[in-house]
Amino acid sequence: MRHDFFDILIREGFESLLLSFAPTPIEMQSISDAYGLVLGEDILSPENLPPANRSCMDGYAVHARDVFGATESNPAYLEQCAQLRVDEAPNFTLKKGDCAAIPTGGTLPDGADAVVMVEHTQELGAGTIEIRKSSTPGEHSMLKGEDAANGEKIYEAGHSVRFQDVGLLAALGIGSVKTHRKPRIGIISTGDELVEIEAPPRVGTIRDVNSHTLRCLVSKAGGIPVNYGIVPDKLQKLESTLAKAIAENDLILLSGGSSVGMRDLTVRAIEAMADSEILAHGVAISPGKPTILGKAGSKPVLGLPGQVTSVQIVMLSIVMPFIRHLMGQRNSFDCRDRPILLAELERNTPSKQGREDYVRVKLKHRKGNIPLAEPIYGKSGLLKTMIQADGLMIIPSDMEGSYAGEQIQVWLI
Amino acid sequence: MRHDFFDILIREGFESLLLSFAPTPIEMQSISDAYGLVLGEDILSPENLPPANRSCMDGYAVHARDVFGATESNPAYLEQCAQLRVDEAPNFTLKKGDCAAIPTGGTLPDGADAVVMVEHTQELGAGTIEIRKSSTPGEHSMLKGEDAANGEKIYEAGHSVRFQDVGLLAALGIGSVKTHRKPRIGIISTGDELVEIEAPPRVGTIRDVNSHTLRCLVSKAGGIPVNYGIVPDKLQKLESTLAKAIAENDLILLSGGSSVGMRDLTVRAIEAMADSEILAHGVAISPGKPTILGKAGSKPVLGLPGQVTSVQIVMLSIVMPFIRHLMGQRNSFDCRDRPILLAELERNTPSKQGREDYVRVKLKHRKGNIPLAEPIYGKSGLLKTMIQADGLMIIPSDMEGSYAGEQIQVWLI
Repeated sequence: MRHDFFDILIREGFESLLLSFAPTPIEMQSISDAYGLVLGEDILSPENLPPANRSCMDGYAVHARDVFGATESNPAYLEQCAQLRVDEAPNFTLKKGDCAAIPTGGTLPDGADAVVMVEHTQELGAGTIEIRKSSTPGEHSMLKGEDAANGEKIYEAGHSVRFQDVGLLAALGIGSVKTHRKPRIGIISTGDELVEIEAPPRVGTIRDVNSHTLRCLVSKAGGIPVNYGIVPDKLQKLESTLAKAIAENDLILLSGGSSVGMRDLTVRAIEAMADSEILAHGVAISPGKPTILGKAGSKPVLGLPGQVTSVQIVMLSIVMPFIRHLMGQRNSFDCRDRPILLAELERNTPSKQGREDYVRVKLKHRKGNIPLAEPIYGKSGLLKTMIQADGLMIIPSDMEGSYAGEQIQVWLI
Repeated sequence: MRHDFFDILIREGFESLLLSFAPTPIEMQSISDAYGLVLGEDILSPENLPPANRSCMDGYAVHARDVFGATESNPAYLEQCAQLRVDEAPNFTLKKGDCAAIPTGGTLPDGADAVVMVEHTQELGAGTIEIRKSSTPGEHSMLKGEDAANGEKIYEAGHSVRFQDVGLLAALGIGSVKTHRKPRIGIISTGDELVEIEAPPRVGTIRDVNSHTLRCLVSKAGGIPVNYGIVPDKLQKLESTLAKAIAENDLILLSGGSSVGMRDLTVRAIEAMADSEILAHGVAISPGKPTILGKAGSKPVLGLPGQVTSVQIVMLSIVMPFIRHLMGQRNSFDCRDRPILLAELERNTPSKQGREDYVRVKLKHRKGNIPLAEPIYGKSGLLKTMIQADGLMIIPSDMEGSYAGEQIQVWLI
């Protein structure tokens, strides 16, 4: 039995279905290549970082209380008891009134709790050092384990590896980590009217735009785009291409079927796959409503709208977070990680209740004030609204619009 | 003669020097690979897009005035004069009172100015079509040239190619464009104390963190990182590695020299290169002040601070925009393109006048209010401040800090 095409889910319901798909398997990855991937394991620090109390400066290791209140005109005088090398583990305890010359990165002797920079000292000869600046405990030094303590859980599985994290892993000597494999995303364009972009223009043909934008956005999310070209509106051909793509990928994106006939074809092709099911026939967002979710075995298949703008909005709002979920990222649909700019809405912007509206906006920067956001209108078959847009304003489904002058959040795209 | 180490430029002055370096050469690039690169040419539209007035829906092409006011209970009746195919260029003018069946993507006949969706019509037989919905000119149709007019300048050189742009180029049949070549960025770590991350920890050694974070951030900006490993503090060895890196790259990043001795070594190595000059000995930002800018021939050489946090801040604020500049991007230092979140500062945050302060902040999200931003303190030799940070708050050099409760802009990193 065919489902009703008006069986539309709210976005949250659609997302719940997507979250039921399992992430890709984990594998070892060198930290150089782990940037942007997602950890598949908790990571415990294998040692203290720094491994010992260390100096941040060239100078003298001191007891801070010995130089408290020292100034240019009222210096303190200490006896130098050692000249430490950077690769030396001092085997003595610094006595009160003593100091030890120490290079940047050198290990502080026991007892020393601060470092005075060499610029604020003067050698007076016979081992006496004049200290011209006061110090406080911990000054110009780093404490053992301050960055990471031995055994401390520094990352949890599901954490997306940032550049800073690559730095911390390197500092701890962790050369490789378990991350989720990059998902392969099969892209199939469907439609008799579609032609490759090199084709000369002919009446009734449209160049295949979507496979190009999908490719960019799949890569941006962290997936590996795999292109299956243009498939005409023939069920048998679509079925065979879809079966191949399902075998070779972690997620399949079909784009093209916006007309009722095409949507029907997409549904029938998915239903013809082994162990398949249609999970949703649409999602209550605009543009982007005619988005079909199915599965074949354990593999998700998304039938995306064919309209060029609709498919871009669905990619940004739903498919890219889903790819991050497949990559193992926790809370990948959490909007809080989106780059948001606060702006003032330039014009009243109506919206239909019952659907989440993704209004394209153009930012007009102003001196000394937040930018103005101009809503851009145009049909979802046109490219120009996304071309002109700096970002998106989301009007929730329970609202009828936003008013000129309101402060709005613009999601930078 | 050696320059004075306290010869520090303000950030804007430092940037002006960077902007004097020429971008990389341009080359042809397929649009699939042009995403994220920068156009090296203006692009004119080679045709009208759409090429003709087109239908966005399956339905009937009509004169909008013929169906004005039509409703379910008060329909309009039109005579169907044609059944258009999607690949057909109609060679007739639609007469008043007539309609033509048209598929999605079909070309409208002359005279037709709107499309009524098939869902709002009924075939009554004998060529009569009942129209149950009013229409307005332009409805469910796209006009010739609405996305791009033949000959229109759609992009200027210096524009960074977004996913939407790849879509528009594809739609216009433009398969390749001239973009600036990805710059190769040589990375040299310096310091006797540095060891590769696989090395077992020993007193006085530090694992080479910076070359790993630099690699990530160079890639993120769009450059190709090229690693030259760790060079000890020997002038001759540094000179030979630097000369090789200059020959092979568009920009060289030296990292490690924070101590006065190391900085001196970096300066001497740059000065030893052919046709070299030291352009700046520092920049008035914190952390990150000890950043050296030199050039050898036409190639820029940056001596970055060795402290792990300082080098990350300098990369984000200065080097990454500079890489974008080398890639040809216009206004690459323009802060307005940064993702910014508005937040409320949680605590008073003092700052020294005379330097731009990059305070790491952690965001605490709240329901129904902008997030709280907690400033994170810690030495720039520690990794933890950047690990904990969600973003940066920039305190300008003419201010002494920001107050708790102030609305601040957090640059998401």
